[in-house]
Amino acid sequence: MEVTRSNFKDNLGKIYEAIEEADFLAIDGEFSGISDGPSVSALTNGFDTPEERYQKLKKHSMGFLLFQFGLCTFKYNLTEAKYVMKSFNFYIFPKPFSRTSPDVKFVCQSSSIDFLANQGFDFNKVFCNGIPYLNQEEERQLREQYDEKRSQANGAGTLSYVSPNATKHPVTIPEDQKKFIENVVERIEELLQKEESSSLELEPCTGFQRKLIYQMLSWKYPKGIHVETVETDKKERYIIVSKVDEEERKRREQVKQVKEQEELNDAVGFSRVIHAIANSRKLVVGHNMLLDVMHTIHQFYCPLPEELGEFKEVTTCVFPRLLDTKLMASTAPFKETISNTSLAELEKRLKERPFSPPKVESAEGFPSYDTASEQLHEAGYDAYITGLCFISMASFLGSFLSPPKNPVSANSKLIEPFFNKLFLMRVMDIPYLNLEGPDLEPKRDHVLYVTFPKEWKTSDLYQLFRAFGKIQVSWIDDTSAFVSLSQPEQVQIAVNTSKYAESYRIQTYAEYSENKHGEKRQG
Amino acid sequence: MEVTRSNFKDNLGKIYEAIEEADFLAIDGEFSGISDGPSVSALTNGFDTPEERYQKLKKHSMGFLLFQFGLCTFKYNLTEAKYVMKSFNFYIFPKPFSRTSPDVKFVCQSSSIDFLANQGFDFNKVFCNGIPYLNQEEERQLREQYDEKRSQANGAGTLSYVSPNATKHPVTIPEDQKKFIENVVERIEELLQKEESSSLELEPCTGFQRKLIYQMLSWKYPKGIHVETVETDKKERYIIVSKVDEEERKRREQVKQVKEQEELNDAVGFSRVIHAIANSRKLVVGHNMLLDVMHTIHQFYCPLPEELGEFKEVTTCVFPRLLDTKLMASTAPFKETISNTSLAELEKRLKERPFSPPKVESAEGFPSYDTASEQLHEAGYDAYITGLCFISMASFLGSFLSPPKNPVSANSKLIEPFFNKLFLMRVMDIPYLNLEGPDLEPKRDHVLYVTFPKEWKTSDLYQLFRAFGKIQVSWIDDTSAFVSLSQPEQVQIAVNTSKYAESYRIQTYAEYSENKHGEKRQG
Ligand SMILES: Nc1nc2c(ncn2[C@@H]2O[C@H](COP(=O)(O)OP(=O)(O)O)[C@@H](O)[C@H]2O)c(=O)[nH]1
Ligand SMILES: Nc1nc2c(ncn2[C@@H]2O[C@H](COP(=O)(O)OP(=O)(O)O)[C@@H](O)[C@H]2O)c(=O)[nH]1
Repeated sequence: MEVTRSNFKDNLGKIYEAIEEADFLAIDGEFSGISDGPSVSALTNGFDTPEERYQKLKKHSMGFLLFQFGLCTFKYNLTEAKYVMKSFNFYIFPKPFSRTSPDVKFVCQSSSIDFLANQGFDFNKVFCNGIPYLNQEEERQLREQYDEKRSQANGAGTLSYVSPNATKHPVTIPEDQKKFIENVVERIEELLQKEESSSLELEPCTGFQRKLIYQMLSWKYPKGIHVETVETDKKERYIIVSKVDEEERKRREQVKQVKEQEELNDAVGFSRVIHAIANSRKLVVGHNMLLDVMHTIHQFYCPLPEELGEFKEVTTCVFPRLLDTKLMASTAPFKETISNTSLAELEKRLKERPFSPPKVESAEGFPSYDTASEQLHEAGYDAYITGLCFISMASFLGSFLSPPKNPVSANSKLIEPFFNKLFLMRVMDIPYLNLEGPDLEPKRDHVLYVTFPKEWKTSDLYQLFRAFGKIQVSWIDDTSAFVSLSQPEQVQIAVNTSKYAESYRIQTYAEYSENKHGEKRQG
Repeated sequence: MEVTRSNFKDNLGKIYEAIEEADFLAIDGEFSGISDGPSVSALTNGFDTPEERYQKLKKHSMGFLLFQFGLCTFKYNLTEAKYVMKSFNFYIFPKPFSRTSPDVKFVCQSSSIDFLANQGFDFNKVFCNGIPYLNQEEERQLREQYDEKRSQANGAGTLSYVSPNATKHPVTIPEDQKKFIENVVERIEELLQKEESSSLELEPCTGFQRKLIYQMLSWKYPKGIHVETVETDKKERYIIVSKVDEEERKRREQVKQVKEQEELNDAVGFSRVIHAIANSRKLVVGHNMLLDVMHTIHQFYCPLPEELGEFKEVTTCVFPRLLDTKLMASTAPFKETISNTSLAELEKRLKERPFSPPKVESAEGFPSYDTASEQLHEAGYDAYITGLCFISMASFLGSFLSPPKNPVSANSKLIEPFFNKLFLMRVMDIPYLNLEGPDLEPKRDHVLYVTFPKEWKTSDLYQLFRAFGKIQVSWIDDTSAFVSLSQPEQVQIAVNTSKYAESYRIQTYAEYSENKHGEKRQG
């Protein structure tokens, strides 16, 4: 089902329930772009280390917005021997919820936008009706703001809500504001005297003046009045002071507090779904999911940490069990039979022998997707077929047991080898990023790091290495590339012959790596 | 009328005609955001110099996309004594037109997007159907690419189209490609021998290999064959070589050339409208138009120049006569009678005495706007009412002549004082940016530049200057502000008393200004 700002709150219960009852979840995200700098192929260099890849994606991809999030929950129905799925397609947009809320800036990449436009993506749904969200720090700050406002409001009864973090001192009234405040005091004294009037509207004034008024009132009149800020049509803000007895005052405070809690929940918005997924500790599958995971953490938890190591820690807190179907499909025993691991091709391939299409139906009241008429690149649909791929591949593994096991549970030892390993796109010799420990460090003793003038083309590199037989070029940027030779023994020859070259420079991968770390240590 | 990618080409003639026949033009732009850094009030500090304001807008506003452009043309009909207007509302989007075209990244500000969403803005029209554009450098590059491709194609007849800038040397065939090329030559020889076959499809190969093939063919077979690159369903590119006589070859070249010219025009897209406006040298009016002008130059001509002086030069080339209705309304004799110069309020005010609503009708076949049911913040509508405001104010000036003059022509001496002066938002003592010469340099001898810890609030500043009577604070950023005192004589006292202060620092505006220029000279 489609979930937007309009129907989010009404369906949140349904969403929580679907997550709670599920055996596993599948997710997918659509972004407003991929790279704000290097071309995709330079962003995904064949000899990136996991750390380098992380740093590049962090630097060049996190400015984009994750604006559609697909969640598909799968629950096995034993009696009917089939999976029942519920698919949600969320539209996400950081709508500012008040004058003081974060005003998010995000980047759009025209090729990505154009690609989605061609897929029939509905941008109006995102921008006019996307669900807002806050990360944890923003949520904390907003909560504090409410607490502080409450502690400013008059009445001893509210003091208990003052945030322990609120270190703010009371403001002393500046000289030029004293007259203003005195005048307010006089008028309130008048109000309290007069039997016939029950409230007083002050003139619109500045936020600082309102702060002074609140502060003065809570100190001078802890009881007997209720203070509230109201906005005129012209968006000017003014204060209304009303006489109330203690009971009425408390009742009003309570109503306000409930309202505030609801506002807070609304502002946290879609992040509540991610919190629910995290708290469920369920298996979450995705296809080629590194960017999805990075965006999810970045947008709904916290800005991405400096170092890959910390990212791994945060990620395993938020998603204790991840499985990447692209990695699974690229690994034995699937690798041998699956030539194309792109999501659409994989889904088609897994319907045919030796695999078999999984039995999955959509739950009652949930629209069903038709895999024949593809709706590829809608996040909800992509999450759905990612789930199908996972089920097929897991069943295939189960078929080797005796007796064969079907379905394979999300906790099965059979799929454990694939847990918490995220596919690394286009890296030649490191298949995955390992969230649970150190990454693989393959030998790169046949790789050269070459720098040259920016006029050079691939053909110049072929020319330079023409004596070395078959080579492979991986562009880093305009003026550097990795060149892999077929024989590690040739590496030193190449380096030696280049000693006196002026226009270009050749280093071994080890030297490159050493320098890079040196630079980092120096900061 | 609404103009999108779908109907742009069909209506371009109409647009050119409207510009050509017009007495004056009104324009307006809608952007995907305003500021990617400072809040709007810090971006528009009360004591910015025009140079500082230019630098801030250049740095913090040009990352956004101008994605809707309103153009309204006005032509006076003498016999009917009324203006006839044609209004165009263009949707703009930098859709990449080929694999090698610029992939524009632009920023969106969620508050601006939300604001437009609330006005009913149609984002799908922008992103799915916006008109593309190129700036002058991109257009030049694309033209060169076509020229180069043409010069690579075989046949002496095409050599005359080689761009004079094409300094590219022929590529020498690298060792590892020699076999490949030899094989191609063999197969073409075969083709030329065999009576019965008229063409040859080569296998898909890399761009570099295609380049080598083109080069070799044009050298080896200047006549008698036609070469063309075709794409398979899978987006692989391969070359087809056909036997043709000289006439047929020339005909094909010509067809191709016409097609290329059309592709080039399509890519230049909306920029052609801006070129037409520029070439018309007509009066262009806008309301608070500095950002509109900056975005227009930046997006459709060239990245904004480093210095304000150069910006003024470029701008007067593109728009030889600009008039800002917000500046006009804020200047005598209008200033006295017009209290609110925001576009919507101004338009309403100018319908009442002593002004009178202009007689304007939309041209036949053009939809008319109803100013009663406002469609504010649609660029076409905003351009329209900007035009109305200009006509009313100009007529008002004309009414003082004897005999009164109505309408006032776009060349009239009466409005000359307002030419090429762009309103400077919220600057206290410099009303406009002067495009035709040096800017005003008012005395700022009552202004202090104060720096302080970022915990400080406005109230701390009031506190600090409590001895100096009424002050005014203009925030620069978290840790600095301008404070204006009522008496210039107090300035030195304030500076002196702060000599030994540790937490804050006070400088005169002159000192601040001196330092800033010093930094720039060193920078
Ligand atoms: N100097 C130079 N740089 C190149 C060349 N080809 C690629 N690059 C650089 O490497 C990056 C990745 O290029 P490539 O792998 O061809 O991917 P593409 O840009 O998506 O076609 C580019 O953005 C350039 O910075 C070349 O022929 N010469
Ligand atoms: N340290 C400090 N900085 C402020 C304060 N008020 C404003 N600023 C700075 O000045 C900028 C402009 O603030 P302001 O004029 O109030 O506009 P606003 O941010 O749109 O409300 C802010 O983004 C801050 O960098 C304040 O009370 N204390």
